[in-house]
Amino acid sequence: MLGLGTGGRSVALVAGMEQQQAAPGPSGLERLVELCGEDLKSVNRIVLDQMQSEVELIPQLAGHIIAAGGKRLRPLLTLAAARLCDYPGRRHLALAACVEFIHTATLLHDDVIDESDLRRGLATANALWGNKPSVLVGDFLFSRAFQLMVSDGSIEVLRILSDASAVIAEGEVLQLITSNDTETAEASYLQVIGSKTAALFAAACEIGGVVAERPERERTALRTYGQAFGVAFQLVDDVLDYSARQAELGKTIGDDFREGKITLPVILALQRADESEWAFWRRCLEDLEQAEPDLGHALELMDRHDTLADSMARARQYARQARGALEVFPESQARRALLEVVDFCVERAF
Amino acid sequence: MLGLGTGGRSVALVAGMEQQQAAPGPSGLERLVELCGEDLKSVNRIVLDQMQSEVELIPQLAGHIIAAGGKRLRPLLTLAAARLCDYPGRRHLALAACVEFIHTATLLHDDVIDESDLRRGLATANALWGNKPSVLVGDFLFSRAFQLMVSDGSIEVLRILSDASAVIAEGEVLQLITSNDTETAEASYLQVIGSKTAALFAAACEIGGVVAERPERERTALRTYGQAFGVAFQLVDDVLDYSARQAELGKTIGDDFREGKITLPVILALQRADESEWAFWRRCLEDLEQAEPDLGHALELMDRHDTLADSMARARQYARQARGALEVFPESQARRALLEVVDFCVERAF
Repeated sequence: MLGLGTGGRSVALVAGMEQQQAAPGPSGLERLVELCGEDLKSVNRIVLDQMQSEVELIPQLAGHIIAAGGKRLRPLLTLAAARLCDYPGRRHLALAACVEFIHTATLLHDDVIDESDLRRGLATANALWGNKPSVLVGDFLFSRAFQLMVSDGSIEVLRILSDASAVIAEGEVLQLITSNDTETAEASYLQVIGSKTAALFAAACEIGGVVAERPERERTALRTYGQAFGVAFQLVDDVLDYSARQAELGKTIGDDFREGKITLPVILALQRADESEWAFWRRCLEDLEQAEPDLGHALELMDRHDTLADSMARARQYARQARGALEVFPESQARRALLEVVDFCVERAF
Repeated sequence: MLGLGTGGRSVALVAGMEQQQAAPGPSGLERLVELCGEDLKSVNRIVLDQMQSEVELIPQLAGHIIAAGGKRLRPLLTLAAARLCDYPGRRHLALAACVEFIHTATLLHDDVIDESDLRRGLATANALWGNKPSVLVGDFLFSRAFQLMVSDGSIEVLRILSDASAVIAEGEVLQLITSNDTETAEASYLQVIGSKTAALFAAACEIGGVVAERPERERTALRTYGQAFGVAFQLVDDVLDYSARQAELGKTIGDDFREGKITLPVILALQRADESEWAFWRRCLEDLEQAEPDLGHALELMDRHDTLADSMARARQYARQARGALEVFPESQARRALLEVVDFCVERAF
């Protein structure tokens, strides 16, 4: 009744997880995966192990979203940061799994939020199982993350990830308030993405320095790197939702437009809008009254006012900040991989 | 748009909170409140202070549910347990606030779950603000609880409450699976209420012993008390949903029936049902095909098979277990209050 019948598919997805992770394909994360491949396998094992529960729906639903959950970028940041800090131990493995659990819980709760039907081409847990189980399984994974941190025993790590979790929730609420509000300022938008996306990037990176017991200066550098990278990452994500190249590649674009999400490409278009353009955006994004040609017209307006290019310029600025933060570390494989992944994430756009 | 207009009402509710708590009326918690009144005021101040956020919707929504949130039974358990253990410090205050935050987060997520329109006669946060903000503000309060625990600094407390949170989430998922399933066994039901309700009672009590650094034996006794009390409390709650006395008092009954929740009064009625009765329960609770006279007929069947009385007998048995657990502690005001509150919660039924 609760979609238990989809369990088989979900288990298959989970079973395929390690393989998928070992060979992530042309994702631009190759260097990171090359560097941390063995560790990532361990993290995947911990994730699989720790999402178990005698309540079968939990591993079924969690397995679905975790298997679908992409490239493990956030736990990879923890692994690579630990490597960058020459950490010789194994604590980073369970903590990277915590980061993935918190991210997954956020996705599950975000699916309730966005009423999105598809995430990365797979049916969302929400669409398959309904809102209620998604919320509760998210709660379970979130609690499990804290149990894992408790087993690790570091109050410092607990502080970093509980702070990040509170900031993420604040960012998600703020995003909700600014949604459909064409008065949203660029500053509010940056606060939203700095909270909902970048806070976990920053925490994931800092943890690598914490387990390695590196001095404050290096931990701050890792945190700055993660925060700036996270902002760049989300800026690019928001640009990609309007990218002609994405459309050519057969990917869906315009999701944010249809939901009335106010992202930077739109904010800049609003700043530069004449009266009739302003009325257009208002009708589409505030009143959500949209007709077939509206997305095309939105793209034209963005093109006319250079808002996608300008948003990308902002993203590159944050990417530079991220790369700059790593200068306190000496040259190493890990540093190169962390620099490269920023470039990749920014340049995937066009 | 997001019900921000109700903020004034919500703030008024919050402002009235201390007063409401200082004089809770004939709630049967008098003795506990008498014992811990000053502490409870401190806890309410911490709660008010810690639910603040620059994202205004968070204190608005959280304030609404926390103000509406009843008698503060769970934080009172922490306060009274600390008192029972002669704890001289102040750590129990913030930790009692954590317990309240976790409880509140659960309520917010539970409102998404039950699609209930009313909780304790007030419109739910969910009904006022929608599912999305309720989920996210719940996440915020949950994160805030962990931040408070981190400030306290005890890994032991973090372990107890992260374990409880995971168990609560498992219990809620299990409840979802057993909902509308007339094959649900008494054992599954007891597992659900032992998890979703009693786990937090147990944790709330144990924490009082932890801050007082009492020996394992006493902490186990507190935990056992809380666990058994929580089960008794929920059993009674589930009986009250079918109570003629409640109906006489003008309270709504039959909510669980309308939702198809499978609680002990129903499970026992199913055990004792003949074929036509079985068909009746199936139609009402599994297919949710209900007509006006069905609740009345359900009450008749429960009466015929003594299922409310038998459920109450189970509740009294757990109440006895709870009281027995406190025998390791010498006679004191705190012990008397903790014994009395169990009796009150069980005897409020009829």
